[in-house]
Amino acid sequence: MPRRWNCRGPRPASSSQPSREREREMEARSPHRSAETLTQPEVLAGPETLDPPDWSFVAALAHRIVDDAVDHVGRVRERPVWRPMPETVDALFRAPVPDRPTPVEDVYRLVKDAVLAYPMGNIHPRFWSWYMGSGNFTGALGDFLAAIQGSNLGGGSHAAALVDQQVVGWLRDMIGFPETASGTLVSGGSVANLIGLTVARNVKAGLDLREEGVAALNQPLRVYASDQVHSCHRKAVETLGLGNRALRRIRTDSRYRIDVAALRAAIGEDRTAGMRPACVIGTAGTVNSGAVDDLSALAEIAVEEDLWFHVDGCIGALISIAPQNAWRVKGIERADSVALDPHKWLHAPFEVGCALVRDRTKHRETFAVSPEFLQGMPRGIASGQWLHEFGFQTSRGFGALKVWMALMEHGVAKFGRLIDQNIAQAALLANLVRSHPPLELIAEPEINIVCFRYVPEGLSEERLKEINVEIMLRLQETGVAALSDTTIRGKHCLRAAICNHRTRPEDLTLLISEVLHLGREVSQT
Amino acid sequence: MPRRWNCRGPRPASSSQPSREREREMEARSPHRSAETLTQPEVLAGPETLDPPDWSFVAALAHRIVDDAVDHVGRVRERPVWRPMPETVDALFRAPVPDRPTPVEDVYRLVKDAVLAYPMGNIHPRFWSWYMGSGNFTGALGDFLAAIQGSNLGGGSHAAALVDQQVVGWLRDMIGFPETASGTLVSGGSVANLIGLTVARNVKAGLDLREEGVAALNQPLRVYASDQVHSCHRKAVETLGLGNRALRRIRTDSRYRIDVAALRAAIGEDRTAGMRPACVIGTAGTVNSGAVDDLSALAEIAVEEDLWFHVDGCIGALISIAPQNAWRVKGIERADSVALDPHKWLHAPFEVGCALVRDRTKHRETFAVSPEFLQGMPRGIASGQWLHEFGFQTSRGFGALKVWMALMEHGVAKFGRLIDQNIAQAALLANLVRSHPPLELIAEPEINIVCFRYVPEGLSEERLKEINVEIMLRLQETGVAALSDTTIRGKHCLRAAICNHRTRPEDLTLLISEVLHLGREVSQT
Repeated sequence: MPRRWNCRGPRPASSSQPSREREREMEARSPHRSAETLTQPEVLAGPETLDPPDWSFVAALAHRIVDDAVDHVGRVRERPVWRPMPETVDALFRAPVPDRPTPVEDVYRLVKDAVLAYPMGNIHPRFWSWYMGSGNFTGALGDFLAAIQGSNLGGGSHAAALVDQQVVGWLRDMIGFPETASGTLVSGGSVANLIGLTVARNVKAGLDLREEGVAALNQPLRVYASDQVHSCHRKAVETLGLGNRALRRIRTDSRYRIDVAALRAAIGEDRTAGMRPACVIGTAGTVNSGAVDDLSALAEIAVEEDLWFHVDGCIGALISIAPQNAWRVKGIERADSVALDPHKWLHAPFEVGCALVRDRTKHRETFAVSPEFLQGMPRGIASGQWLHEFGFQTSRGFGALKVWMALMEHGVAKFGRLIDQNIAQAALLANLVRSHPPLELIAEPEINIVCFRYVPEGLSEERLKEINVEIMLRLQETGVAALSDTTIRGKHCLRAAICNHRTRPEDLTLLISEVLHLGREVSQT
Repeated sequence: MPRRWNCRGPRPASSSQPSREREREMEARSPHRSAETLTQPEVLAGPETLDPPDWSFVAALAHRIVDDAVDHVGRVRERPVWRPMPETVDALFRAPVPDRPTPVEDVYRLVKDAVLAYPMGNIHPRFWSWYMGSGNFTGALGDFLAAIQGSNLGGGSHAAALVDQQVVGWLRDMIGFPETASGTLVSGGSVANLIGLTVARNVKAGLDLREEGVAALNQPLRVYASDQVHSCHRKAVETLGLGNRALRRIRTDSRYRIDVAALRAAIGEDRTAGMRPACVIGTAGTVNSGAVDDLSALAEIAVEEDLWFHVDGCIGALISIAPQNAWRVKGIERADSVALDPHKWLHAPFEVGCALVRDRTKHRETFAVSPEFLQGMPRGIASGQWLHEFGFQTSRGFGALKVWMALMEHGVAKFGRLIDQNIAQAALLANLVRSHPPLELIAEPEINIVCFRYVPEGLSEERLKEINVEIMLRLQETGVAALSDTTIRGKHCLRAAICNHRTRPEDLTLLISEVLHLGREVSQT
């Protein structure tokens, strides 16, 4: 059979000069010293590879993709925020896996026509649903370059691992954690919170919980959080084997912040009942209304009561870099662990979250395992740190690069100003709501989340919910704006979470006028 | 102050035609109906944005990046697998977060010179350390496009969510799971295994474990796996509150597969001792030597003993698509849950793993929470499925796209052939080892992992380890090849895991000749 696998393979078509020097160097250090004497296989197929037969063709396609991408992001304001998918698109994504190849340019055409054209919408200036960042072009280049380099962030001695730890250090510094703190980039806030609570559980167990498990505890652990706490914390205590009942929700004050007196009372009650208060979760920015717990007060209580102090800062931790609003999250620097999300207010393209832990030793002791195939070395690839010793993942991608590139490009001060800008925009929107009856402000915005509704006189709560849901759906369906809805203390409302570097005040005035218009239209039917 | 925020912002510089029709449509549906009457803010700063002032400049940079990327991947064979970082690079990544901006082209120059130049090495044809895929260019374009679109895979009605579920369906079909099975793309195998074991724990608890926690169990749960099981399973049982002691390691046979008789005996012992056998983990491809447990036998035992049958298929599940070797993982289709890794043998750039669960209801019941801010809707963005109900994450990135594009481009049959090719290459390498004393084959390769060592006569095990570690380090430091090492039944050895679509037989003959050369060099010192 032909020795196809002996050929050198196609050359890339790109413009840069081949490094003849490097080639010679490699040839010199890699002579086939005794290759001729080695048995050659006769039965080996191929070899095949995923590399293209013609790099110049791939390069040309990639250039087209870049142009389309610039157009896609640069003109996002001209498109609807969201639009429903036609059935043809839906059907396309129900086809079975293809056995045979499709030319890559045809694959891209499908992506362009059927994927890019029907987005979630969160890169749009008028997307304010749930809570998402809006991405940035440099970050997308970062994801591309990370994938090109391909490094695995499980650990080792290579540049990506250093960038990863540098970004963790930057985030650590942003919230005022000490240099000795540790951290890990993860998929997002839910896992970052789970990491913090895992360390909390193990540290506060009073026995070797890794070995013995939760059943060995002589007192049930208790975790405290406000009744506004994100649902991921329920998942976390369930995952950790503590059970949902271990998470005690504490009532909130008129501003939806944890009631500190009620927290103290609950801790006392639980001690009396034979339970072990282990952890208090402070929320820096609740998902419903953006409330920020009194973190300094919680830090005090944690010290007094010997609790682990975890801050869920997925929404608000990074307010610490915003000059006009940093005071709102004062006290976060006293936490034992913090979860935060660069894919929110740093606008890193999805996904990247971060867990930070004040005590590096306790963090590592929660997750480190040292199997025989992952031993460290004094030199070589394995001479770096094993980063998998700080979380659930073994292999890990290079999500750090998109964060690093955007922070290098813009500087952290600008991200701080953008956070201030969003908070000011929420205040503007609240003012607009207040000055436009029959709109009703449901919660005074603490930061960048505005809850309001359209309330014509004399209608039941049920009818009001119908009307406001319909307003929300029509805003989405017309592509004008994306809001979501929620229910706060029994009142259903529309909710705008302005975590968006593309939003302008004119977008907010447009929202108000559209809601008023749709409200009239809907309530007349 | 100037109303800078009223200006329209710079236009993208790309070539495609502006859609005047779309613009008119948007203007028609989004008139500033009453905007003139709305209060305008006087104190709002900016607004600033992360978008560039000049898109044409960014486009030009992106074109340069594409050329460099093609060169980087296309010429990877000409570069060393890995090289140590100079101190100047190390220092660069210890700098604090910049407050001020840096021109984006300078940021990219740093990435090119200091990041791309010092990789982990796993895209290189002679990288066989640990166990990693080697990426592919189309996948990198996929990551770029995913970041450009920016969609959040937490759920909702948009194309990315459909692509995500289509890829899950494709992976489900590849391992022969029924159409009714569910799945979720996750960071990687460790989390995929954790998801499978979480469902197993909750289903086999015999009470409402989510609510009550592990302490409420009247019998301790037991999980069984071979003594070759990956370390992530220890992390998993620890995380789940079962404790490391809940994971019973069963001895392996001469081929490092779980000893089925010993497993049966252990289950019997545990029942007698009052414990509740809950789950057996079968490994399809151990990390040490690539051993594949007898999955059909484990499926039988699971039925007989009423156990959850989880398969850790991170390394080997996808052998099910390889025509010559699929028989090796027969029985995987009978599992209750499977973890697998598209960033291994599908060569998706890091990171993407997948958890599959046969019983969709049980899967969802383990993770679903329905907070008030995440209610489904009959229409609009929230009319899609909530994908966060199947795992730990709430927000999630669009890692599916890189898998989708590569599978569309090449077809699944080619990936199957590439797996066969790697397994044939491992057999070749083993033959080369056997025919070149003083090399010693430590374990007959089952699939694509070859464990061997350089064994000159008359040396102690300690000295042999020193010599082989030194061979490994010099291979890495000269950039010739990346192997890792491990210890199997007390014997330290070199380990080549050939999960690499760029490897050619000539790379393996080069490896042998270099190991022989370095072995002589090292053992003479």
